[in-house]
This record gives sequence, C-alpha cells and structure tokens, in this order.
Amino acid sequence: MTSRRLRAPIVLPADPACSVLRDAVVDIGADGRITHCGPAAEAPALEGALVTDLPGILLPGLINAHAHSPMVLLRGMGGELPLLRWLREIIWPAEAKLRAEDVRAGMLLGSVEMLRHGVTTSAEMYFHGEQVAEAVLTTGGRTLIGAPIMDLPGLDWLAMLRDIDAWIDRDGRVYGPGDRVEVTYGPHSAYTLPEKALRLTAEAAAERDALVQIHVAEAPDEDVKQRTEHGSVPLLLEKVGMLDNRVLAAHTVHLSDVDIALFAKYGVGTAHCPGSNSKLASGIARLTDLRAASVPVGLGTDGPASNDDLDLWEEIQLATMLARLSTQDSTALTAADALLLATRGGAEALGRPDIGALEPGRWADLVHIDVDEPAFATGLDAPDGQLLSNLVWAAGSRRVRDVWVAGEQVVGGGESTRVDRAAAQAEVGRIAARLRG
Amino acid sequence: MTSRRLRAPIVLPADPACSVLRDAVVDIGADGRITHCGPAAEAPALEGALVTDLPGILLPGLINAHAHSPMVLLRGMGGELPLLRWLREIIWPAEAKLRAEDVRAGMLLGSVEMLRHGVTTSAEMYFHGEQVAEAVLTTGGRTLIGAPIMDLPGLDWLAMLRDIDAWIDRDGRVYGPGDRVEVTYGPHSAYTLPEKALRLTAEAAAERDALVQIHVAEAPDEDVKQRTEHGSVPLLLEKVGMLDNRVLAAHTVHLSDVDIALFAKYGVGTAHCPGSNSKLASGIARLTDLRAASVPVGLGTDGPASNDDLDLWEEIQLATMLARLSTQDSTALTAADALLLATRGGAEALGRPDIGALEPGRWADLVHIDVDEPAFATGLDAPDGQLLSNLVWAAGSRRVRDVWVAGEQVVGGGESTRVDRAAAQAEVGRIAARLRG
Ligand SMILES: [Zn+2]
Ligand SMILES: [Zn+2]
Repeated sequence: MTSRRLRAPIVLPADPACSVLRDAVVDIGADGRITHCGPAAEAPALEGALVTDLPGILLPGLINAHAHSPMVLLRGMGGELPLLRWLREIIWPAEAKLRAEDVRAGMLLGSVEMLRHGVTTSAEMYFHGEQVAEAVLTTGGRTLIGAPIMDLPGLDWLAMLRDIDAWIDRDGRVYGPGDRVEVTYGPHSAYTLPEKALRLTAEAAAERDALVQIHVAEAPDEDVKQRTEHGSVPLLLEKVGMLDNRVLAAHTVHLSDVDIALFAKYGVGTAHCPGSNSKLASGIARLTDLRAASVPVGLGTDGPASNDDLDLWEEIQLATMLARLSTQDSTALTAADALLLATRGGAEALGRPDIGALEPGRWADLVHIDVDEPAFATGLDAPDGQLLSNLVWAAGSRRVRDVWVAGEQVVGGGESTRVDRAAAQAEVGRIAARLRG
Repeated sequence: MTSRRLRAPIVLPADPACSVLRDAVVDIGADGRITHCGPAAEAPALEGALVTDLPGILLPGLINAHAHSPMVLLRGMGGELPLLRWLREIIWPAEAKLRAEDVRAGMLLGSVEMLRHGVTTSAEMYFHGEQVAEAVLTTGGRTLIGAPIMDLPGLDWLAMLRDIDAWIDRDGRVYGPGDRVEVTYGPHSAYTLPEKALRLTAEAAAERDALVQIHVAEAPDEDVKQRTEHGSVPLLLEKVGMLDNRVLAAHTVHLSDVDIALFAKYGVGTAHCPGSNSKLASGIARLTDLRAASVPVGLGTDGPASNDDLDLWEEIQLATMLARLSTQDSTALTAADALLLATRGGAEALGRPDIGALEPGRWADLVHIDVDEPAFATGLDAPDGQLLSNLVWAAGSRRVRDVWVAGEQVVGGGESTRVDRAAAQAEVGRIAARLRG
C-alpha cells in the first residue's frame, strides 16, 4: 500500500470532546495506520499520496464490545420462549450440532453483516475460536476472540484453558495483517466455573498480558450462590485475582455501588448490551453511574440468536433511551456521548488504544456514511449537535457506504469487497436447514 | 387500473393470529381494494389479471398512529437541551418562522421517508393541515390529518375549530383518490385548552363522525391542574363528552387503572410512542395492561425533531423491549404481537377498518420486503415464529423495496415513484438554512 489521504466535508475523529471537523482529511500511511487527521486547510503536504474526495461523513469504525456472532446460524430461533426454556430446548441442542466449519460459516456472514453496518471490530465469545479468527481474516474485519472456558457436562475447562495458552504461545497474542486477530481468554462466567478455574485463567492471562472476557451480573437470578458466598461476582473476581484493566466484563446489569467502585479502581472494562438486556428482560444497566465513576464502557450487541442482528447503531440509540428513561433525564446521554461509547469507549474497554479514534498511530479503521438521505436533509452545515443527532438517531447504519480496516477497503458501495455475500448467506441457509432437519 | 395479482413466497395478512402464508397471493381490484388473499394453490381463477411474482415478503403497509412529520424541517435541532428549554428556546421560535409552503415541503419529504420505510398511513398533527394533505396527495401516501386547535398567545382556538368544520363541510371527511386524506380534529391537549374548547370540539367532531386526535398523559408533570380538578385527563375528557371510539389518544404514558378501564369502556384508541417517550424521558406506557384491557393500540413515531426519524420498525422493536423490561417478562410481547400493533392495531386505533390488513374490501396498501439480506439467511422455510423474528428484529426497514397504496405502486426499488427525493431533500435544506439564518 502507498500512503493515502481521504478528504470529506465532515470528519468525526472521536476525540474526547467528540469534535466535528468540517472539510477535513485523514492521512493513512503505507502500513495502514493513521498519520494525520485534521482540517484540510491545515493539513501537511503529502508528496505522492493518493487523494480521495468523499462526499459524506468519515468516522472511526464502530466497536462491538460483546458478541457471539456465529449465532447468526440460529437467528430468531424460538424467540417466543422464556429465557431458560429457550436455551435448554432450542439453543443448546442446536449448538450441540454445530461443527467447526459451521461456526466458520456463521462468523463469515456475521462479520460481513457487521462490516456493512460500519462495525470494524468485535469482541467475540464462541466455540471453535480458530475458525472464528479464520473467518475474520477472510472478511478483513478485526476481532478479539474469547475462546470459551466452561464447566459443563462433556466439557473439560482445564483443557479449554490450556488450548488458549497453546494458541497464544504458537501464533502470538495478536496476529494477522493489521493486527486483525487478538486471542483472549473467555471464561464464560463465575456461575458456570469453579473458583479454581477463574484463578488459573487469571494467572494464564496475566502471564501473556492477554484480555479476559467474562459475563458478569447479567440476569437477576443467575449467580445466587456466588453472591451469597462472596457478596457479589466482582468481589469474587477480585479475590481470585482476575480484576485488572485486562478484563472485559459483559452486561454488568446488576451492580452495587461497591461493585462499580471496584471496577473503577481496577480499570475493568464493561460491555453494555442494552438490546439484549431488553429483549431478554434482564434489566437496565447503570450506564450513567458507570460513566460517572469513569469505568471504561463500550457497547455490545450480544448474540444474534436473541438480539437479533449485529447493528451496533441500534445499541447506540438504545443506550441513550434506557439511560434517559432510567434517570428520568432527557439529557442523561447526548448523541455525542453515545457515539463515543461505540468508538473510543469500546477501544478503552477492550484495552485497545490502537483503534476507536482517528488519531496518528491508530489503525485506519474507518467508516464513510452516505449523506444522500432524508436524515441529513437539514444540511451538513447544521450545528455540530444537530449533525451528530442526524447521524446517530436518524441515519444509523442505513447508509454505511465504505469501510476500511487497517487502511484496506473492505466494504465499497455497501458490499463486502472480499466475500460473496450471496454465497455466505446460502451457506448459512444450508446449515440452518440441517439444524432444523 | 386493471385488476392484478401479486404472488410471493411469504404473505403476512395481519389477521388476528398473525398467520404466515407460504406461496400466497394478494388480488387487487381495479378500484385499488383487495379482492382476495390466500395460498396460491387455493386462489380463484382471475381472468385477464396481470400477475406479478415477487421474491420477498408481502405485508400490509405500516400505520404510524402519531406523527408530526413536517418537523423533518427541524430534525435534530437542540437535542441536548431539557424538554421545556428545547421547546421554548429552539422548537417554538423555529416553528414561528414556518410558512404554509414550508410545512408542505416538510410533509413531502416526511411522507417520502415514511413510504420508503413501508409506512403507508400516518396520523398527523400539524399546522397548515391543507398543505399537509396536499403533500400526501403528491407522494401517494395516506394520512389522517389532525388540524390543530390550541389556546396559545396569538392563536384563536375557536377559529381553528371552525376552520376544521369548514374544511370537512367543503371537501368531505374523507377525500382524494383511494380515500387518501381523512380530515380529523386535533385539539392539542387538555392542558393547553379550556374545557369549553374540548366540549365544542367533541360536539363538532361527533356531528361529522370525525376522529379527534389529542395528546393525553405524556409527561408526568404536564397536566397537574387537570388531574387535581378532575382526577385525570381521561375523566375530564369523559366529562366534556369527548370519550368514544372516535378518539385517538397519543402517548397515554401515565394512566391509572381507572383511566385504562375508561378507555376500554369507550373503545378509545391509543398511539403508543416508545421512542419519543424514551428520548424525552417521559416514561414507559402500560402497553401490556392496555392490551390486556382490549384497548385498541397503534404505534407512533411522534415528531422527527425529537425522535428523530419516521421509521416505525424502530417503534415495533422498542415497544417490545420496553414491554419486556417493564414487566420483567421476556415473553411479554412477541414479534407477531408487535407487528400487529403496527398494522391491524393501528387501523383499529384510528377507526379505519379499511386498512391495516390484507383482507377483501380493505385498500391494497402493501409492502414488499427484499429478503436478500443476512437477516433472512436462515431461510424462508424457517418456522413462522423465526421468520417473523427475522423480519421484525433483524430486517426492519432495511430492505423495504416496493410499496403500494390503494393498489398504486408509490415506491419501487426503494425510491418514490412520484417524487424526486433529491429535490425534496434540497428544498428542506433551503428551509432549514433559512430557519438557522
Ligand atoms: Zn454474551
Ligand atoms: Zn405529539
């Protein structure tokens, strides 16, 4: 790759102030990292660089901080059942039939779906992690794959843990062109693992400076034993040495003030999943309190079997709505706040200072939004707040046109540049038919 | 028009059971009304009819039961302010500058936006009702326009009321090709009008069998005086003779059991606006209680200045999420339930048994959803519940391809067949720039 310059009427660098730059450029080096972002009038001379003029809005690729994307294979199955019956009667039996190549096909389509929605990175938890990674290397997306560790009949948690050690020791913690794959530990939850498994996972991850992804306090009734014995799951995680800034806690709906203070103290990242938490009636997470305590928060879709798509823009909208409803304050979260959660905030929660904003040194993960849409009819020269509202509340994923990951264009005109979407859909259709049969 | 037959692999007639018909037809008479809907194998012979094979899902056009669509002119303005400051400092001053032709241009784009989302009918409340009607006759949509009656400085509520009388007496209560325009009374609310105005409006509407659209119990603090004096706004409306099945009450967030029983007794229709109620932190309406009491409920977007678009699919999704969260029951509202709210339920709330379902005698207001999308990758032969989930939760408005109103195709390939969208957007842009200037 040669170095390039993208120029657009609106650029949103996702800096802490959520600035709106007018007529600005993003420069991308030959290595796929951003070298400069700022107003065109003040841009440095760029000898021999390819300059592309874009008509819309440029912003960082969104970060899905919690997903089980291969579950597009099970999308919409049995959604009328209560949670536990749905898991036991529908989802687990179907998942038991999944082969490694099925998971790869599911992740391929899930990754294409996310890229088309402008989601360039996802933190995944799913079986057959190496196939998930392979699929993402095929689509050109970016993933932090949390290979699962669970203590269920037929599963050996210690072998699962050691498999992750071996994977990292073999391929490296981060690998692939543009650092596209990060291998992370995915202990499912405190209520599905013995204390010893949590302790050994924390040790193995710390040794390798690896991220740990874990479900925490999602449903009101899921961790009664742990709460009774330890006060709360965060207190248990502290006890086993798992609390530090290399932990990404998903959901975190039912937290006490003590839990939040603990997360803040250790810099634990959280993935807020308002769509899943609503669909499954899990509750409303204390987003404004987490933010007030400076806990790093990203947004996640959770699995498409329940949520039911991988469109992070919907989570941006929902996060705001639930924050406002639960605080009875219509200013509790602005469009700017919500957009930062899905970009810069997600990067912070994932411990990835190399993505989530348009700043020199970060990977050039970018989204270009087409503004030929009623959502933007009041004009690109509208005040910053109005423009952000138009983007976040009215446009959403509707007009994502181009997407780059590490400087490489992976979506053009709304379609994957790498994967035949029709073929990917057909393959998922064949697997879904087999699961039904 | 000659009579026609549309055939599709999936047809959703929006009957009370929300049936999913496989390989089915919808027959449309020369007058634009449905003559038959059912499985292709059992369809009557249709001499000389034009048959069109569609590859996707056919369902009734959605009904937006509460909107102020011309406010696309103000979309996203000042959204960071608390409600009352937002109204006083931003919205009302901007609206004061609006001319009749501005409202027409706003409604033109708003109507095109709705049609592209598969929303064929909207119940509107806005100034310059005749321009709103004219715009809708231009796009080919369908509207129930509630011309406003308000008691504010500079406004004469009695003159506003008599203007509506005169409009109906001149043009008829329902007019336009395919009954596209229905003139209704739009008294803003009990807290912005004296009792006498409510009483006279009820009388004038009853004389003409006209619908009354009114905001009821939206915010917790809006009608303290009325609640103190009369117990509740519904009790006040009963007292002035306004409660009957020709009333459409918008929002109805803060209702007591007595209020709900009253609505059920009189068959008062309600417009549930979960997006607006969340964005403005108004509260969560008691949807499951209203449904349990058999109160007719439709879904509304409210105005795009606050919500911020006219995509009713988002309201379908939100209605479910808030119903499940507020009842802590993940089965409180299924995909089928939610889809019926936006179709058949909306028609019932609006008192329009001629739309909202694919049944003989109703207008052929139809939407065709393209299924070439990851949302439907698990296959059209998936079980009914899964297919409805895929449509409602995962596809939404993303792939609305064709739309018919009264048998006439008004959207083809995702674009208006009648209106130049770019020109409509540009005109809104010019007006928005003038409002800023
Ligand atoms: Zn999860
Ligand atoms: Zn309203």
